[in-house]
Amino acid sequence: MSLLIVGSIALDSIITPFGERVDVLGGSTVYTSMASKNFCKTNIVGVVGADFPKEHIELLESNEIDTEGMVIAAGKTFRWKGVYNDLNQAETLDTQLNVFAEFNPSISDNYKKCDYVFLGNIDPVLQLSVLNQMQNSKITACDTMNFWISGKKETLLKVIKKVDILFINEEEIKMLIGDANIFQAAEIALSLGPKLVVIKCGGHGSVCIGENFIFFAPVYPVKRAIDPTGAGDSFAGGFMGYLAQKDNFDKDTIRNAMIYGTIMASFCVEAFSLERVKEVTAKSIELRKSKIRKSVIFR
Amino acid sequence: MSLLIVGSIALDSIITPFGERVDVLGGSTVYTSMASKNFCKTNIVGVVGADFPKEHIELLESNEIDTEGMVIAAGKTFRWKGVYNDLNQAETLDTQLNVFAEFNPSISDNYKKCDYVFLGNIDPVLQLSVLNQMQNSKITACDTMNFWISGKKETLLKVIKKVDILFINEEEIKMLIGDANIFQAAEIALSLGPKLVVIKCGGHGSVCIGENFIFFAPVYPVKRAIDPTGAGDSFAGGFMGYLAQKDNFDKDTIRNAMIYGTIMASFCVEAFSLERVKEVTAKSIELRKSKIRKSVIFR
Repeated sequence: MSLLIVGSIALDSIITPFGERVDVLGGSTVYTSMASKNFCKTNIVGVVGADFPKEHIELLESNEIDTEGMVIAAGKTFRWKGVYNDLNQAETLDTQLNVFAEFNPSISDNYKKCDYVFLGNIDPVLQLSVLNQMQNSKITACDTMNFWISGKKETLLKVIKKVDILFINEEEIKMLIGDANIFQAAEIALSLGPKLVVIKCGGHGSVCIGENFIFFAPVYPVKRAIDPTGAGDSFAGGFMGYLAQKDNFDKDTIRNAMIYGTIMASFCVEAFSLERVKEVTAKSIELRKSKIRKSVIFR
Repeated sequence: MSLLIVGSIALDSIITPFGERVDVLGGSTVYTSMASKNFCKTNIVGVVGADFPKEHIELLESNEIDTEGMVIAAGKTFRWKGVYNDLNQAETLDTQLNVFAEFNPSISDNYKKCDYVFLGNIDPVLQLSVLNQMQNSKITACDTMNFWISGKKETLLKVIKKVDILFINEEEIKMLIGDANIFQAAEIALSLGPKLVVIKCGGHGSVCIGENFIFFAPVYPVKRAIDPTGAGDSFAGGFMGYLAQKDNFDKDTIRNAMIYGTIMASFCVEAFSLERVKEVTAKSIELRKSKIRKSVIFR
């Protein structure tokens, strides 16, 4: 099955304790698709400016990501600049929306038939618009962030009501639900509509909660995490890509999706931008899976 | 095999978002022993004042905890008062050392022969003194805290060099080693002497690291955590109690010890003081184990 990803495409400038990069490839669509493409046919929707380096489009296309839905608009590409003083929290130094300010995703007839949909962290108005354009999608998912929770909560709740899976950070679900206990908060979030809530806890792994279902994924122990930008999107890409590959939503598939999400996030943080992610092989993914299995299984 | 536990016995006054208790039973020795007694013969060493309620001693003894090493000294029992604004971090409001100020554990000939030893979070000078009194112990472990890391690091490092297992919080190992990456920090900590480092990550579970060994335990998902006081000690009690029961230090035993630690900590946080812990049954422990297994295993 194929996966449709709608979100941002960006040029990021990033400072971490381990170095600095200027105007490197980033954005939720890019990170998610470069993870999901390891598992399923991936189609992306997004907008870039005329200044967007051709090599980035070539990277996506050489990875068999369908860029038909990528619009090159007059103007400059969306830019984000941030600093991580520790690796847990980014501080935004500058945001230039540029062509992204007018982003209004129009889904092609081809893409409308995608069975699996991932809505990256963009304005919930746009997320809702995409959901309304889809025809017969099987599994839809969204991510979000504190900015939309405080600014557009009502529309966000409409999105959450419609999707099957909510990806959200630990701090964000506490903010959204107003409960400091994530298990309690997840239960309330489930009552808002989704079948699954996936809570990402940064360096502490993640937990997936559904009705009578809970699954914890640890982190893959990366000793030199360099840049966490895109880790959450890479997680979602591994997760959604695996679901689309298996075309299944049973518990065993979801558990494995959590592990593949974890693995893709671990590659992401090992270098800036897509530097490490673009080198990932099926063999390196399976190697990490067997290491994770050993790190959680007890007899 | 039997376990010797040396640490504090206290009367705690605790405020959490869920309520308040005054002068309730607490202290590392108490929490650790009330967890380990579910698994092995448990002997405790500690000091209380003449004001220590008889019912607390009766509670320990009725749980078959050997209190031969408990000294009742003239004066008042050690008191700690703390507030949790959220459940992640205690703020100390008051500490009255009282008889604990003169605590200098003398280990009886009987106790000196214990095979398993847990040193609760007390002055590393005392921890070292206990280790030096032991004869032929098989597995020794210690806990510590930020206060000793900053105040008595040199002595603490001597303790760490001698023990087999270091139990430590995530923030504390970062502080001890000076590395923000816990996997890197654990590797350095292993080079200081211990065979295992167990890092407790509060509501995010725990990780145990040894040479070519890593094991993650999730949390047991408690929806109403009331009071985290003693959770780390309860964890250590479940862990060490299980090791002593099995009298084994192989990887499978260690993995299971991590899970039993997790379970005992989950009971601890469900109520103030020992209110929940004292009701724990073998059946309720095994029930949580099977739930944890389902929450981490993937095929």
